Amino acid sequence: MSRKPALAVVGATGAAGAVMLQILSQHADVWGDIRLLASPRSAGRKLAVRGEECEVLALDEDTLRGVDVAVFLVPEDVAARWAPIAAAQGAVVVDASAAFRMDPDVPLVVPEINPHAVRVRPRGIVASPGCTTLALIVAVGALHAEFGLSELVVSAYQAVSGAGQAGVAALREQLSTVAGTRLGTTPGDVRRAVGDDTGPFAGPVALNVVPWSGTPQQDGWSSEELRIRDETRKILDLPGLRVAATCVRVPVVTAHSVSVHARFERAVTVERAHEILATSPGVVLYDDPAAGDFPTPADVVGTDPTWVGRVRRSLDDDRALDFFVCGDNLRKGAALNTAQVAESVAAELTAGLAAGRSAGEAAYAVD
Amino acid sequence: MSRKPALAVVGATGAAGAVMLQILSQHADVWGDIRLLASPRSAGRKLAVRGEECEVLALDEDTLRGVDVAVFLVPEDVAARWAPIAAAQGAVVVDASAAFRMDPDVPLVVPEINPHAVRVRPRGIVASPGCTTLALIVAVGALHAEFGLSELVVSAYQAVSGAGQAGVAALREQLSTVAGTRLGTTPGDVRRAVGDDTGPFAGPVALNVVPWSGTPQQDGWSSEELRIRDETRKILDLPGLRVAATCVRVPVVTAHSVSVHARFERAVTVERAHEILATSPGVVLYDDPAAGDFPTPADVVGTDPTWVGRVRRSLDDDRALDFFVCGDNLRKGAALNTAQVAESVAAELTAGLAAGRSAGEAAYAVD
Ligand SMILES: NC(=O)c1ccc[n+]([C@@H]2O[C@H](COP(=O)([O-])OP(=O)(O)OC[C@H]3O[C@@H](n4cnc5c(N)ncnc54)[C@H](OP(=O)(O)O)[C@@H]3O)[C@@H](O)[C@H]2O)c1
Ligand SMILES: NC(=O)c1ccc[n+]([C@@H]2O[C@H](COP(=O)([O-])OP(=O)(O)OC[C@H]3O[C@@H](n4cnc5c(N)ncnc54)[C@H](OP(=O)(O)O)[C@@H]3O)[C@@H](O)[C@H]2O)c1
Repeated sequence: MSRKPALAVVGATGAAGAVMLQILSQHADVWGDIRLLASPRSAGRKLAVRGEECEVLALDEDTLRGVDVAVFLVPEDVAARWAPIAAAQGAVVVDASAAFRMDPDVPLVVPEINPHAVRVRPRGIVASPGCTTLALIVAVGALHAEFGLSELVVSAYQAVSGAGQAGVAALREQLSTVAGTRLGTTPGDVRRAVGDDTGPFAGPVALNVVPWSGTPQQDGWSSEELRIRDETRKILDLPGLRVAATCVRVPVVTAHSVSVHARFERAVTVERAHEILATSPGVVLYDDPAAGDFPTPADVVGTDPTWVGRVRRSLDDDRALDFFVCGDNLRKGAALNTAQVAESVAAELTAGLAAGRSAGEAAYAVD
Repeated sequence: MSRKPALAVVGATGAAGAVMLQILSQHADVWGDIRLLASPRSAGRKLAVRGEECEVLALDEDTLRGVDVAVFLVPEDVAARWAPIAAAQGAVVVDASAAFRMDPDVPLVVPEINPHAVRVRPRGIVASPGCTTLALIVAVGALHAEFGLSELVVSAYQAVSGAGQAGVAALREQLSTVAGTRLGTTPGDVRRAVGDDTGPFAGPVALNVVPWSGTPQQDGWSSEELRIRDETRKILDLPGLRVAATCVRVPVVTAHSVSVHARFERAVTVERAHEILATSPGVVLYDDPAAGDFPTPADVVGTDPTWVGRVRRSLDDDRALDFFVCGDNLRKGAALNTAQVAESVAAELTAGLAAGRSAGEAAYAVD
């Protein structure tokens, strides 16, 4: 059998799924059959990928059969249930949810940083980090390689599409309510106008910021905040790294921003940091505030890289850098990283046959 | 002469000025004559204060004459020029601008923290801190008194009214442009829709966040960021305090938020931090995320205190606390702090006569 690997996009109708379909149409085409899966609610819908209309099928054991690589862009509980089923049927699963990220038998992969980790996947599952970790990790990882990271203090400015289509719908609706009004000047006026239904957020997000994402965890921390700590430690292989993260939702549609204070083992300079960031794959350095050059979500949305600006050395500590990163949470923050990982698996499977290897997974040749 | 001191509100027509007039109508009335001053553009306008219509006069040497206390709520260059003139004519000036904050002969006063500093004012001028410093300093100062502050890493979520009426107008206008559209999903679409005129901001602020406020200073820092460092050091009398601040403008009308990572000399606990914050004047502790209780700008706008929530001890450092503060930048962040300082000067002047003192300044009795 001489064919390209077959891909399933599970969650093709979601916010990250829509971007995955764009990416599959834009990137070099390494896939054979592409199958689009979602909930039974979406079965029968038609979506375009690689210039062709493709019917969405309901996710079940049948529709997962014959798939070589399955990217999962679905809620955590759906991934927790179905990823092992897909893996048991022979697919390599690349999962964008939080379901398996901390599983010691599941690698957590960012191709710019730990590309080789993808090869060791005892469960047949590879995880992609959360969108806020992905917004900062490529830049932080590049600086770590040079200076040795010892501590991170980060505050996130999270876009609403980080909470999927429902998050975008909530902001659009709330914005229609507040625009053209005098709201935002008396206590609770925005809350009263928006009403009790604030969608997936813990408060109104139009004309407001909401310092909470995820679920309550130990000692007042949110799940989103602890994930940044856990995922960064795992990806950089720094189990003792000090991390303090604060996640705040802001009224931006797409592209997360993070204010980063990073302390290193060695002294830093802005000049050297600039050199590193300017030459790191996946990073764009955009840092000349006097000329108005710094990344903002409105400028980086829809683009692939991690944008970095506002690079400053601490005035009180020559081993600390402050900087501001922006990245599209649906691209690098979800679909793009997942696609990159899936493509590396495809290359591996294809090369496997070329080299005559058989690693317990099916091996392929390009036709 | 037996009278209450005469007050001039310089900048009565501005964003902070409007809130000052509200406060003067709400607080115990310690003032005799109140005079409203602004630019010649506003001369003749009528504004309500203490339930009466009052005509706005153009600021000049004549209209400053006979004033005992002058609160300045005008741009920095206007304050730099006119505050010394008002002081030379015998008024005690309380200035909300940045013009004199770092002058060693001008005290920088937050009544909850360093009330006595107001007494020593060789130039006859007292300064009020910037709105972002004021958003965090009351809470940080209370914790410092117990634990001994050694370092601050802060990221601000600054409301547009921090840039005055022009900032509010810019956001309102931009929101009307973006609401009801699909903007915010392709690179630069918000920027193109909003156009080149982004008001007082370095980029579009609707559906966006802008990591820049103020003017460029040394080594990539902005003036707003360095002010937080300088002002915090001066108010807390900690000249060597390590401070790294990042200022980001967000699409919120009024109320600044700050994500604070504070390291102390002594070990901290959340329980003790809660006790301190719950009993500190000027602070409201609002911290039960599981019940949805944390401060947001939409809830605290129009209120006086500093609201504190999300109090967490660092998981990796028992001397560090993370928390989130919100405060109305026009109230405590500008007009309220200025009014508090002015009222303490009024009390001092009044008590001066009662005690028979004459400190080179006019002294008064309550009539
Ligand atoms: N959004 C981000 O920035 C981001 C970043 C990193 C990771 N992630 C992760 O990626 C995943 C998807 O996020 P999203 O933002 O794209 O969410 P979303 O917009 O809510 O989309 C969810 C997708 O999952 C599908 N789905 C839901 N229940 C299903 C079921 N029982 N069986 C099969 N499919 C089901 C939905 O199909 P229907 O349309 O049929 O309901 C839809 O395609 C989540 O785990 C999220 O944590 C998201
Ligand atoms: N907004 C805040 O959150 C905040 C917080 C802390 C400190 N501050 C400081 O408070 C000051 C006022 O801020 P704002 O936000 O209220 O600004 P604003 O809304 O722009 O108001 C400016 C005020 O200054 C007056 N003014 C301008 N030029 C003048 C001149 N040549 N002579 C006399 N009056 C003049 C204006 O009068 P016209 O209406 O006649 O032009 C108006 O009353 C600034 O120094 C600011 O840095 C503001």
